[in-house]
Amino acid sequence: MLEIEDVTAGGAACCAPLSGPTLGEAEAAELARVFKALSDPVRLRLLNLIASSEGGEACVCDLTGPFELTAPTISHHLKVLRQAGLIDGERRGTWVYYRVVPERLTRLSGLFALPAFTS
Amino acid sequence: MLEIEDVTAGGAACCAPLSGPTLGEAEAAELARVFKALSDPVRLRLLNLIASSEGGEACVCDLTGPFELTAPTISHHLKVLRQAGLIDGERRGTWVYYRVVPERLTRLSGLFALPAFTS
Repeated sequence: MLEIEDVTAGGAACCAPLSGPTLGEAEAAELARVFKALSDPVRLRLLNLIASSEGGEACVCDLTGPFELTAPTISHHLKVLRQAGLIDGERRGTWVYYRVVPERLTRLSGLFALPAFTS
Repeated sequence: MLEIEDVTAGGAACCAPLSGPTLGEAEAAELARVFKALSDPVRLRLLNLIASSEGGEACVCDLTGPFELTAPTISHHLKVLRQAGLIDGERRGTWVYYRVVPERLTRLSGLFALPAFTS
Protein backbone atom coordinates (compact mmCIF):
# COMPACT_ATOMS: atom_id res chain seq x y z
CA MET A 1 0.00 0.00 0.00
CA LEU A 2 2.94 2.29 -0.59
CA GLU A 3 1.80 5.54 -2.19
CA ILE A 4 4.77 7.66 -1.35
CA GLU A 5 6.11 10.14 -3.85
CA ASP A 6 9.53 10.13 -2.30
CA VAL A 7 11.47 13.34 -2.68
CA THR A 8 13.68 12.41 0.24
CA ALA A 9 15.61 10.01 -1.93
CA GLY A 10 17.73 11.40 -4.69
CA GLY A 11 20.89 13.07 -3.76
CA ALA A 12 22.33 16.12 -2.14
CA ALA A 13 19.10 18.11 -1.91
CA CYS A 14 17.55 15.49 0.35
CA CYS A 15 18.69 16.97 3.64
CA ALA A 16 19.58 20.53 2.85
CA PRO A 17 18.38 23.13 5.37
CA LEU A 18 16.51 26.27 4.29
CA SER A 19 19.68 28.11 5.27
CA GLY A 20 21.64 26.01 2.79
CA PRO A 21 21.76 25.75 -1.00
CA THR A 22 19.17 27.35 -3.26
CA LEU A 23 15.90 25.45 -3.21
CA GLY A 24 14.93 24.48 -6.76
CA GLU A 25 11.46 25.16 -8.13
CA ALA A 26 10.57 21.46 -8.31
CA GLU A 27 11.64 20.75 -4.75
CA ALA A 28 9.88 23.89 -3.49
CA ALA A 29 6.68 22.71 -5.20
CA GLU A 30 6.98 19.24 -3.67
CA LEU A 31 7.67 20.62 -0.18
CA ALA A 32 4.75 23.04 -0.56
CA ARG A 33 2.49 20.03 -1.15
CA VAL A 34 3.78 18.38 2.02
CA PHE A 35 3.15 21.56 4.02
CA LYS A 36 -0.33 21.82 2.54
CA ALA A 37 -1.00 18.34 3.95
CA LEU A 38 0.24 19.61 7.32
CA SER A 39 -1.83 22.81 7.23
CA ASP A 40 -4.83 21.23 8.92
CA PRO A 41 -5.16 20.87 12.71
CA VAL A 42 -6.88 17.45 12.51
CA ARG A 43 -4.13 16.06 10.29
CA LEU A 44 -1.47 17.40 12.66
CA ARG A 45 -3.21 15.75 15.60
CA LEU A 46 -3.54 12.48 13.64
CA LEU A 47 0.16 12.58 12.80
CA ASN A 48 0.91 13.25 16.47
CA LEU A 49 -1.26 10.27 17.53
CA ILE A 50 0.48 7.97 15.04
CA ALA A 51 4.00 9.21 15.81
CA SER A 52 3.48 8.91 19.56
CA SER A 53 1.82 5.47 19.48
CA GLU A 54 3.51 2.68 21.36
CA GLY A 55 5.87 0.97 18.94
CA GLY A 56 5.36 3.83 16.47
CA GLU A 57 2.25 2.20 15.00
CA ALA A 58 -1.44 3.09 15.32
CA CYS A 59 -4.51 1.10 14.31
CA VAL A 60 -7.05 3.15 12.36
CA CYS A 61 -9.57 1.78 14.89
CA ASP A 62 -7.86 3.93 17.56
CA LEU A 63 -7.73 7.11 15.47
CA THR A 64 -11.39 8.07 15.23
CA GLY A 65 -12.19 8.12 18.96
CA PRO A 66 -10.26 11.29 19.80
CA PHE A 67 -12.14 13.34 17.19
CA GLU A 68 -15.76 14.34 16.77
CA LEU A 69 -15.56 13.38 13.13
CA THR A 70 -16.93 10.55 11.02
CA ALA A 71 -14.76 7.60 10.02
CA PRO A 72 -14.83 8.64 6.33
CA THR A 73 -13.55 12.11 7.27
CA ILE A 74 -10.70 10.61 9.30
CA SER A 75 -9.95 8.27 6.38
CA HIS A 76 -9.76 11.26 4.05
CA HIS A 77 -7.26 13.03 6.30
CA LEU A 78 -5.17 9.86 6.60
CA LYS A 79 -5.16 9.56 2.81
CA VAL A 80 -3.87 13.14 2.46
CA LEU A 81 -1.08 12.42 4.96
CA ARG A 82 -0.20 9.24 3.11
CA GLN A 83 -0.19 10.89 -0.30
CA ALA A 84 2.21 13.49 1.10
CA GLY A 85 4.53 10.68 2.12
CA LEU A 86 4.22 11.48 5.83
CA ILE A 87 2.65 8.16 6.87
CA ASP A 88 2.39 4.69 5.46
CA GLY A 89 -0.42 2.20 6.04
CA GLU A 90 -0.52 -1.60 6.09
CA ARG A 91 -3.67 -3.67 6.19
CA ARG A 92 -3.54 -6.60 8.60
CA GLY A 93 -6.83 -8.45 8.93
CA THR A 94 -9.72 -6.05 9.49
CA TRP A 95 -7.72 -2.92 10.18
CA VAL A 96 -5.14 -0.66 8.60
CA TYR A 97 -2.13 0.18 10.76
CA TYR A 98 -0.28 3.44 10.27
CA ARG A 99 3.30 4.49 10.89
CA VAL A 100 5.13 7.70 10.19
CA VAL A 101 7.69 7.64 7.37
CA PRO A 102 10.86 8.48 9.32
CA GLU A 103 12.81 9.63 6.25
CA ARG A 104 10.18 12.25 5.50
CA LEU A 105 10.08 13.60 9.05
CA THR A 106 13.86 13.66 9.20
CA ARG A 107 13.89 15.61 5.92
CA LEU A 108 11.52 18.20 7.41
CA SER A 109 13.46 18.39 10.66
CA GLY A 110 16.65 19.01 8.70
CA LEU A 111 14.94 21.63 6.55
CA PHE A 112 14.43 23.86 9.58
CA ALA A 113 17.82 23.22 11.14
CA LEU A 114 19.75 26.42 11.67
CA PRO A 115 23.41 27.17 11.13
CA ALA A 116 25.35 28.37 14.13
CA PHE A 117 25.28 32.05 13.16
CA THR A 118 21.53 32.51 13.61
CA SER A 119 21.10 30.63 16.87
CA MET B 1 7.92 46.08 13.07
CA LEU B 2 7.41 42.96 15.16
CA GLU B 3 4.18 41.21 14.21
CA ILE B 4 4.95 37.80 15.58
CA GLU B 5 2.26 35.79 17.31
CA ASP B 6 4.76 33.78 19.27
CA VAL B 7 3.67 30.28 20.16
CA THR B 8 7.26 29.24 20.64
CA ALA B 9 7.34 30.93 24.00
CA GLY B 10 5.24 29.51 26.76
CA GLY B 11 6.34 26.34 28.36
CA ALA B 12 6.76 22.65 27.81
CA ALA B 13 4.82 22.47 24.54
CA CYS B 14 7.33 24.77 22.85
CA CYS B 15 9.69 22.06 21.68
CA ALA B 16 7.73 18.86 21.85
CA PRO B 17 8.14 16.53 18.86
CA LEU B 18 5.15 15.04 17.04
CA SER B 19 6.22 11.75 18.60
CA GLY B 20 5.91 13.30 22.06
CA PRO B 21 3.00 14.51 24.19
CA THR B 22 -0.51 14.98 22.81
CA LEU B 23 -0.78 18.07 20.66
CA GLY B 24 -3.55 20.31 21.99
CA GLU B 25 -6.23 21.72 19.72
CA ALA B 26 -5.00 25.30 20.09
CA GLU B 27 -1.40 24.44 19.32
CA ALA B 28 -2.47 22.26 16.38
CA ALA B 29 -4.46 25.20 14.99
CA GLU B 30 -1.51 27.57 15.39
CA LEU B 31 0.92 25.14 13.77
CA ALA B 32 -1.56 24.54 10.94
CA ARG B 33 -1.47 28.30 10.25
CA VAL B 34 2.34 28.21 10.09
CA PHE B 35 2.25 25.27 7.66
CA LYS B 36 -0.32 27.07 5.55
CA ALA B 37 2.16 29.92 5.22
CA LEU B 38 4.76 27.35 4.12
CA SER B 39 2.46 25.64 1.63
CA ASP B 40 3.47 27.90 -1.25
CA PRO B 41 6.57 27.32 -3.40
CA VAL B 42 7.36 31.03 -3.74
CA ARG B 43 7.21 31.55 0.02
CA LEU B 44 9.48 28.54 0.58
CA ARG B 45 11.99 29.93 -1.90
CA LEU B 46 11.79 33.38 -0.27
CA LEU B 47 12.41 31.80 3.15
CA ASN B 48 15.34 29.89 1.66
CA LEU B 49 16.78 33.11 0.17
CA ILE B 50 16.46 34.94 3.49
CA ALA B 51 17.79 32.06 5.61
CA SER B 52 20.77 31.51 3.32
CA SER B 53 21.69 35.19 2.97
CA GLU B 54 25.11 36.24 4.12
CA GLY B 55 24.80 37.28 7.74
CA GLY B 56 21.31 35.77 7.83
CA GLU B 57 19.74 38.98 6.52
CA ALA B 58 18.25 39.86 3.13
CA CYS B 59 17.25 43.24 1.72
CA VAL B 60 13.81 43.23 0.10
CA CYS B 61 15.58 44.84 -2.85
CA ASP B 62 17.35 41.50 -3.45
CA LEU B 63 14.24 39.34 -3.13
CA THR B 64 12.28 40.30 -6.24
CA GLY B 65 14.98 39.61 -8.83
CA PRO B 66 14.90 35.79 -8.58
CA PHE B 67 11.15 35.66 -9.30
CA GLU B 68 9.02 36.60 -12.28
CA LEU B 69 6.60 38.31 -9.98
CA THR B 70 5.71 41.91 -9.21
CA ALA B 71 7.05 43.66 -6.13
CA PRO B 72 3.54 43.83 -4.55
CA THR B 73 3.18 40.06 -4.95
CA ILE B 74 6.54 39.45 -3.29
CA SER B 75 5.54 41.88 -0.54
CA HIS B 76 2.33 39.93 0.02
CA HIS B 77 4.25 36.65 0.38
CA LEU B 78 6.71 38.26 2.80
CA LYS B 79 3.80 39.56 4.85
CA VAL B 80 2.33 36.03 5.10
CA LEU B 81 5.69 34.67 6.26
CA ARG B 82 5.98 37.46 8.79
CA GLN B 83 2.46 36.99 10.12
CA ALA B 84 3.27 33.31 10.63
CA GLY B 85 6.23 34.34 12.75
CA LEU B 86 8.75 32.78 10.35
CA ILE B 87 10.55 36.01 9.46
CA ASP B 88 10.93 39.45 10.90
CA GLY B 89 11.55 42.68 9.03
CA GLU B 90 13.30 45.90 9.95
CA ARG B 91 13.21 49.11 7.93
CA ARG B 92 16.56 50.85 7.58
CA GLY B 93 16.48 53.82 5.26
CA THR B 94 14.80 53.00 1.97
CA TRP B 95 14.63 49.25 2.36
CA VAL B 96 13.24 46.58 4.67
CA TYR B 97 15.69 43.89 5.74
CA TYR B 98 14.42 40.42 6.59
CA ARG B 99 15.76 37.71 8.89
CA VAL B 100 14.35 34.33 9.85
CA VAL B 101 13.03 33.98 13.40
CA PRO B 102 15.36 31.28 14.73
CA GLU B 103 13.05 30.25 17.59
CA ARG B 104 10.29 29.46 15.12
CA LEU B 105 12.51 27.40 12.83
CA THR B 106 13.97 25.56 15.80
CA ARG B 107 10.44 24.80 17.00
CA LEU B 108 9.58 23.30 13.60
CA SER B 109 12.83 21.35 13.43
CA GLY B 110 12.11 19.89 16.86
CA LEU B 111 8.53 19.06 15.89
CA PHE B 112 9.77 16.58 13.28
CA ALA B 113 12.57 15.13 15.38
CA LEU B 114 12.21 11.40 15.79
CA PRO B 115 12.76 9.24 18.83
CA ALA B 116 15.36 6.48 18.50
CA PHE B 117 12.83 3.68 17.97
CA THR B 118 11.61 4.91 14.59
CA SER B 119 14.94 5.75 13.07
